[in-house]
Amino acid sequence: MTVLSDLEIARAAHTDPIGEVAARAGIGPEHLELYGNDVAKISLDAVTAHEDRPRAKYIVVTAITPTPLGEGKTTTAVGIAQGLERIGRRSMLALRQPSMGPTFGIKGGAAGAGHSQVLPMEKLNLHLTGDFHAITAAHNLLAAMIDNHLHQGNELDIEPHSVSWRRVVDINDRALRNVIVGLGSRIDGVPRETGFDITAASEVGVILSLATSLKDLRARLGRIVIGYNRAKQPVTAEDLHAAGSMTVILRDALKPNLLQTTENTPVLIHTGPFGNIATGNSSVVADQIGITSSDYLLTEAGFGSDMGAERFFNVKCRVSGLHPDAAVMVVTVRALKTHSGRYTVVPGKPLPEGMTLDNPDDVWAGAPNLRRHIEIVRGFGVTPVVALNLFPGDHDDEIDVVRRIAEECGAHFAASTHVVDGGAGAAELARAVVAACQEPTRFRYTYRLEASLADKIEAVATGVYGADGIDIAPAAAKELTHFQQLGYGHFPVVIAKTHLSLSHDAALKGAPTGWRLPVREVRAAVGAGYVYAICGDMRTMPGLGRHPAAERIDIDENGETVGLF
Amino acid sequence: MTVLSDLEIARAAHTDPIGEVAARAGIGPEHLELYGNDVAKISLDAVTAHEDRPRAKYIVVTAITPTPLGEGKTTTAVGIAQGLERIGRRSMLALRQPSMGPTFGIKGGAAGAGHSQVLPMEKLNLHLTGDFHAITAAHNLLAAMIDNHLHQGNELDIEPHSVSWRRVVDINDRALRNVIVGLGSRIDGVPRETGFDITAASEVGVILSLATSLKDLRARLGRIVIGYNRAKQPVTAEDLHAAGSMTVILRDALKPNLLQTTENTPVLIHTGPFGNIATGNSSVVADQIGITSSDYLLTEAGFGSDMGAERFFNVKCRVSGLHPDAAVMVVTVRALKTHSGRYTVVPGKPLPEGMTLDNPDDVWAGAPNLRRHIEIVRGFGVTPVVALNLFPGDHDDEIDVVRRIAEECGAHFAASTHVVDGGAGAAELARAVVAACQEPTRFRYTYRLEASLADKIEAVATGVYGADGIDIAPAAAKELTHFQQLGYGHFPVVIAKTHLSLSHDAALKGAPTGWRLPVREVRAAVGAGYVYAICGDMRTMPGLGRHPAAERIDIDENGETVGLF
Repeated sequence: MTVLSDLEIARAAHTDPIGEVAARAGIGPEHLELYGNDVAKISLDAVTAHEDRPRAKYIVVTAITPTPLGEGKTTTAVGIAQGLERIGRRSMLALRQPSMGPTFGIKGGAAGAGHSQVLPMEKLNLHLTGDFHAITAAHNLLAAMIDNHLHQGNELDIEPHSVSWRRVVDINDRALRNVIVGLGSRIDGVPRETGFDITAASEVGVILSLATSLKDLRARLGRIVIGYNRAKQPVTAEDLHAAGSMTVILRDALKPNLLQTTENTPVLIHTGPFGNIATGNSSVVADQIGITSSDYLLTEAGFGSDMGAERFFNVKCRVSGLHPDAAVMVVTVRALKTHSGRYTVVPGKPLPEGMTLDNPDDVWAGAPNLRRHIEIVRGFGVTPVVALNLFPGDHDDEIDVVRRIAEECGAHFAASTHVVDGGAGAAELARAVVAACQEPTRFRYTYRLEASLADKIEAVATGVYGADGIDIAPAAAKELTHFQQLGYGHFPVVIAKTHLSLSHDAALKGAPTGWRLPVREVRAAVGAGYVYAICGDMRTMPGLGRHPAAERIDIDENGETVGLF
Repeated sequence: MTVLSDLEIARAAHTDPIGEVAARAGIGPEHLELYGNDVAKISLDAVTAHEDRPRAKYIVVTAITPTPLGEGKTTTAVGIAQGLERIGRRSMLALRQPSMGPTFGIKGGAAGAGHSQVLPMEKLNLHLTGDFHAITAAHNLLAAMIDNHLHQGNELDIEPHSVSWRRVVDINDRALRNVIVGLGSRIDGVPRETGFDITAASEVGVILSLATSLKDLRARLGRIVIGYNRAKQPVTAEDLHAAGSMTVILRDALKPNLLQTTENTPVLIHTGPFGNIATGNSSVVADQIGITSSDYLLTEAGFGSDMGAERFFNVKCRVSGLHPDAAVMVVTVRALKTHSGRYTVVPGKPLPEGMTLDNPDDVWAGAPNLRRHIEIVRGFGVTPVVALNLFPGDHDDEIDVVRRIAEECGAHFAASTHVVDGGAGAAELARAVVAACQEPTRFRYTYRLEASLADKIEAVATGVYGADGIDIAPAAAKELTHFQQLGYGHFPVVIAKTHLSLSHDAALKGAPTGWRLPVREVRAAVGAGYVYAICGDMRTMPGLGRHPAAERIDIDENGETVGLF
């Protein structure tokens, strides 16, 4: 596909001093904190300082239902930003920060690919400016204060079995999923069963992504419910006097990070909440900064439009007050072929042989998935642009099928070779985005906040996923009633389900019909401000494989990092 | 003592741009990575680039046996550096990075005090540049790879009960001291008992403090022994293919951080290994950079001269190849009074009433401790300077007693009011340091590396602590033999004991005689390169108190951090 590896391209790319990148975006040194020459944090003062500036067009980058390999949404978003610059538009990009843990798991980084990458790739995929570490520290301080409270006499009368606040580490560590803590002698705490999630699953990270100011961050952290007392009333981080310290730990992490693409387009990297149980979007404050710093702001939402984009629309946009002008739907030939139901893609193994052959019929057979995702975006009143991320083995007549599907749906369409050609390869796609942004939008949510929690879940299941209805397990129904009583009824909802199908069943490809969404369990993320419904097995702590990437990552003779990509 | 609080002084202090601070120390922008305006990392290239420059006088800052309150060693080191500048000498300071966990425990920061502080205090006591987070991540990645290895079939035939590599967090969290991991189902790992230490106790941190280059770091990480296989042979991080990834995680953390004092003197902050079970000194590379960047380099060693300074001499100096010209012995009136054995000091409570009265006899009664510490330093062939850190309630005739004790021992002496007066208050002390550095030194170690491990432990116990001998428990003796067989016999030794007495018993004040050191257990830190003998209960994971500082730390109306100091 490319003669040079991603790593070689990244190393050969010229980076501008980050202060220059910021200056081009109208962000002055008074709002920057440098972290080396190529990364800076942007002060939140920039939001108010720039509020009178013209607003950028706002584009969410989403995808059809992906294969387990991912369809190159990040690199396509990078390519479009680069392409917009090529056609003379000032653009900016807002992406999630990759979690460090998985870097040492199956694969290396999440910095884009080829000539559409984010630099510096090593920093991006490791500590960056330490925001994930701050989330880990704040999260675990609260956990320590909970166990300390139990140990010191339990004044708040916390029911130990009700404590749902676990600990987090940013490492794939399956042995920490279920643990017993507090063993030893009387001075070593109170024994109880709990566990660790990966940091990207932390509610603290979601809070950071939704907070609009340091004060809002403080207030949201205080509202975190860690469990219940014996009178079944919620116990909060505020009750434990933990929220102030958590805020102090997170104060720098609230500032978005500025990096650049391989073509020096500014990129905001900020927060990275999980796309399955959490919101799967980058931060509100990053978008608020980006919206006054460019003509076109692209923001990426995790997984397909049923996942990250639905939460972008129904959760994030409500908080930010920003409404998108267009949605880019990333699609690949291989993903459409998978939605034919004829092939199974397994990470770490070559694609099934038949998939690589020229077979337009496979693409047609997968079309219902793309059509459904276009409908989802239209359901929010937003103009869709189908972006075909080209791979070297893609056949012309297959590409043409994707174009025809998109055009039959009335969507804008362009294929893009940004991975090989950078922004030049995405110029046509960039023009399609510009055209889409000129169309009028009538943005609307899937549900009103005043609806009941169950109705909101049903609205997403039927209106977005295409389910016939929902089946709520009795315990979950009881908990929903409890949540309504506790005053959580006005929250938006997040539905935790597989990202590999529009349904809750990863095996159902295409656009499944005639199914109902089973709600097994419901939980409240009170600090973040949503209720989430668990539909299927949600893994919140990955494991390492037999031979994880960590075994290959190293330094070479010259001290350069190898194996990261 | 001061009208302004430490926090108010810190906020009011003028900081120079850190690039200017570096430039005054002869460190150019080509060796700096800025982290904001007031913190920078220094590239290790500076060591070789500057190796032809003149060498600074090298002074270790140590103390008599402290009370549990600490005797202001950091602030005195800061004061001397400021005082040296006042009398026209270019000075530099190398300090350990404080661990973030305890900041939220009993007390706030470790940034000095009053007008002799390190700035910026908030960064110093929280994330700084993320080095501790990197240690945590690298340490826990190895732990995850161990449990993953057990889960994936245990090819190396690791005996699970022999695994001594625990996990770490930088939080006081007693509930994590003893845990069972790997619970759940077959896919959730192999159940076993283990635990968490605080990050400052991590061998990875000690390795970082002793590594002389990225390659040396890589090699030391590879030599970490995590446990044994069923043939009782050591299993290393290299065997698990973890050392490369750990190095990549730590590559930025190997670079020392540059900050400044309240009077803009350059301060190197780097690594912070525990002073009880580990080396308790800042890094070799920080000292190697500082030695060519000033006329006087002060480096602080943890606790009393029996603890951090002994390891500074016998462990750190062997690695760095640097030999000190003088040792500053920090002493307080209150500590000497405590060594009379007539008073008990309890953290968080007021001093016993009698201690605050004018009573020179109490000071005389504590003199044996100071005399012994002066002898310890002399034993290494290094010139001692007794530095009396003055407190507002100290009485003139008590101060005079300290002077007489020091002078009777032939040591240089000065009292210092740096906390109230900054460098001006430490000018006399700075002159004493300059005078001491003009005396010839004949540096010598306590033992030769060729001696047996038991002989080395005995040499420290008798030659440094003043014990009559050592008593090695049978299991420990067997383990020492095992270590000799495994080729660890050439390592230096670290003796893990209380810092509150020259002996292993915190209750024995002054200069205890007629006692023997009981060695309960021995362990090998093979990556760091030493064997440590455990004499008494060593806590490697603190707990939070009933009302930890975390409950008071917060942001105020203006978003400023409060409660940190």
